[in-house]
Amino acid sequence: MAGVTSPANTTSGTASPTIQTTANDPRIGLPVERLDTPSLLLDRAASDRNLQRMASFFADRPARLRPHFKNHKCVPLARRQLAAGAVGMTCAKLGEAEVLVAHGIDDVLIANQVVGEAKLKRLVAVARRAKLKVAVDHIDQVLAISAAADAANVEVGLLIEVDIGMGRCGVMPGEPALALAKQIRTLPAVRFDGLQAFEGHLVNVLDRDERTRQSVAAMSLAVQTRRLLESSGIPVGCISGCSSATYDATGVLAGVDEVQAGTYATMDRQYHRLVPEFEIALSVLVQVISRPAAARAVLDIGVKGAGCEFGVPGIKGFPDVEVPYFLSEEHVVINRCPDWRIGQPLQLIPTHACTTCNLHRELVVHEDGHVVDVWPIEASGRLS
Amino acid sequence: MAGVTSPANTTSGTASPTIQTTANDPRIGLPVERLDTPSLLLDRAASDRNLQRMASFFADRPARLRPHFKNHKCVPLARRQLAAGAVGMTCAKLGEAEVLVAHGIDDVLIANQVVGEAKLKRLVAVARRAKLKVAVDHIDQVLAISAAADAANVEVGLLIEVDIGMGRCGVMPGEPALALAKQIRTLPAVRFDGLQAFEGHLVNVLDRDERTRQSVAAMSLAVQTRRLLESSGIPVGCISGCSSATYDATGVLAGVDEVQAGTYATMDRQYHRLVPEFEIALSVLVQVISRPAAARAVLDIGVKGAGCEFGVPGIKGFPDVEVPYFLSEEHVVINRCPDWRIGQPLQLIPTHACTTCNLHRELVVHEDGHVVDVWPIEASGRLS
Repeated sequence: MAGVTSPANTTSGTASPTIQTTANDPRIGLPVERLDTPSLLLDRAASDRNLQRMASFFADRPARLRPHFKNHKCVPLARRQLAAGAVGMTCAKLGEAEVLVAHGIDDVLIANQVVGEAKLKRLVAVARRAKLKVAVDHIDQVLAISAAADAANVEVGLLIEVDIGMGRCGVMPGEPALALAKQIRTLPAVRFDGLQAFEGHLVNVLDRDERTRQSVAAMSLAVQTRRLLESSGIPVGCISGCSSATYDATGVLAGVDEVQAGTYATMDRQYHRLVPEFEIALSVLVQVISRPAAARAVLDIGVKGAGCEFGVPGIKGFPDVEVPYFLSEEHVVINRCPDWRIGQPLQLIPTHACTTCNLHRELVVHEDGHVVDVWPIEASGRLS
Repeated sequence: MAGVTSPANTTSGTASPTIQTTANDPRIGLPVERLDTPSLLLDRAASDRNLQRMASFFADRPARLRPHFKNHKCVPLARRQLAAGAVGMTCAKLGEAEVLVAHGIDDVLIANQVVGEAKLKRLVAVARRAKLKVAVDHIDQVLAISAAADAANVEVGLLIEVDIGMGRCGVMPGEPALALAKQIRTLPAVRFDGLQAFEGHLVNVLDRDERTRQSVAAMSLAVQTRRLLESSGIPVGCISGCSSATYDATGVLAGVDEVQAGTYATMDRQYHRLVPEFEIALSVLVQVISRPAAARAVLDIGVKGAGCEFGVPGIKGFPDVEVPYFLSEEHVVINRCPDWRIGQPLQLIPTHACTTCNLHRELVVHEDGHVVDVWPIEASGRLS
């Protein structure tokens, strides 16, 4: 299995539901509705179907999957993605890469810039143990990494981030990328490995044809940059980019090698609007704690337990129940509720899986309504 | 010192900056700008002045301070609040109370409803070790707590939450509260201790006179309810409520005994608009990681590292720099930035201290620009 050094800790080579028992956890075997609340839940069969669907899509295509760890931050789930054929993992933060490498997952891309003395010390420590790539978009970052890696006698792979329209990080496509690639190739202890490009400004375009059209146009800027570098005699190891919302648009472009899809593993309410072929496997078990008025119910979760950047969560099995926009820190107030009793368990469907997983410490894994495993979210809160 | 069983672990009896050394932390003594980023920072002198200001305000008044632990979730900071005269701590969650009690802080109020079999087991375990009060607003919660406490041979103090206009939890003022109090007094192992009332719908009213007028009117509903119970022969041990934004409005009302102010200890951008007499002691050290265009800078923090429910953060020392509304998960993009270099350290001022502290694992405490201590945020992520 690519990207994993410790086969003893891995799942089987398929995405079938191999049980990874947390044998001592007293919750194993419990019906989910008897769990304490809030508990972050993962429907293993649904998640496995998502992993299998994405893996099948790329099985006969040139691009490979490098799933984004920032989605779930959970090593056992990363292992399942690798077991299903992913070539390695993408990270948002150095701290996430440290967690993966500590668990024997040693092919990691940090898709953001890594800057500062404290971070460079950590970076070279990771580079000593892993096949590491890092995004850069300025010669100052490159010079600092080169100096630190050279002093530590390691080599770090660099991807030049190209801004394909998002207006966040990245050099402009074309000549600026070529100039930076040339500079990288003159420096010690760094290796020019290719391009990083993310169409993040387009992933939420609801109309799928329009999303495809715009994201392909954007990613083509990275592909053209690749061709420019190659025609200048600079080999480009890869273009790494794309998302769960554009995997079948930009992920199939000639010249794109790696798809950094993340959310497809867990899914959430927002991504389900964008790519409904993947199932929502993530929910938060919550409880009605108060019924203070005839049609009002209060649930024991708020913005400290569910990401709300993309709007209000839903309630599983109650499509007509409306959650008002504002969430308190610890409460959801529902003003027109069904006949729920105090203590009634419900499953909240978050709008944003990535920020929700970061708020929790473990995923309680269930199948057929019962707890089958508990997976730590090892990289929760690894912000640096 | 009230509320603390282990004097050996406490600070001195004043809010002066007694050093609580984390002697082994290699960051002690560093200039803050040399810390890795993001790091959650607390200006100890500013926080101590906030604690002293609030303590002084109530020194000669009838009400006592019971600070809300949910603000910072950090035991060393709670100890300083107790050292400055607070009678105990308020918690949003049972898990927060468990953390406090495990650290010897044994006078705790859980200002929300505690429901469900798993929680009741934990609740009676806390009640065995602490002076515990819990909010209730329905006989079903009361019956369940009474049964669990009776079986465990402990007693739990109950505060009836009264809805004074927020429309979240709580019984209606007046007769409904009286009826529930009468029921509580017939049941074993529960003790009617008084009323819980929170004017949460009014704390963000910007005009201070208007905020005072409205919040006093709201809290008067709780005071009237107290008088009704007392005239019915039911002693009311306390009314506990209020906030950092209304401490000098509702906290001075006759009949209000405990002020659950939280944010005054750390402060944030939003509360500073409301009660500017308290200083912003909390910030997040971040770094410029990219300068991809002439006036654009990208910082290494996003919604995974700073609460954004109350709007965009500010940048300390740069009042004219505008942060656009949307924060990415891991980035802040500033489109009209000063001449910042890549690697430049900056301090981000969050709009919401409570959700920000919950995203971090430690507070790096500084004074005169240098790290003087590192305090774990023990209750970070204690959502249940």
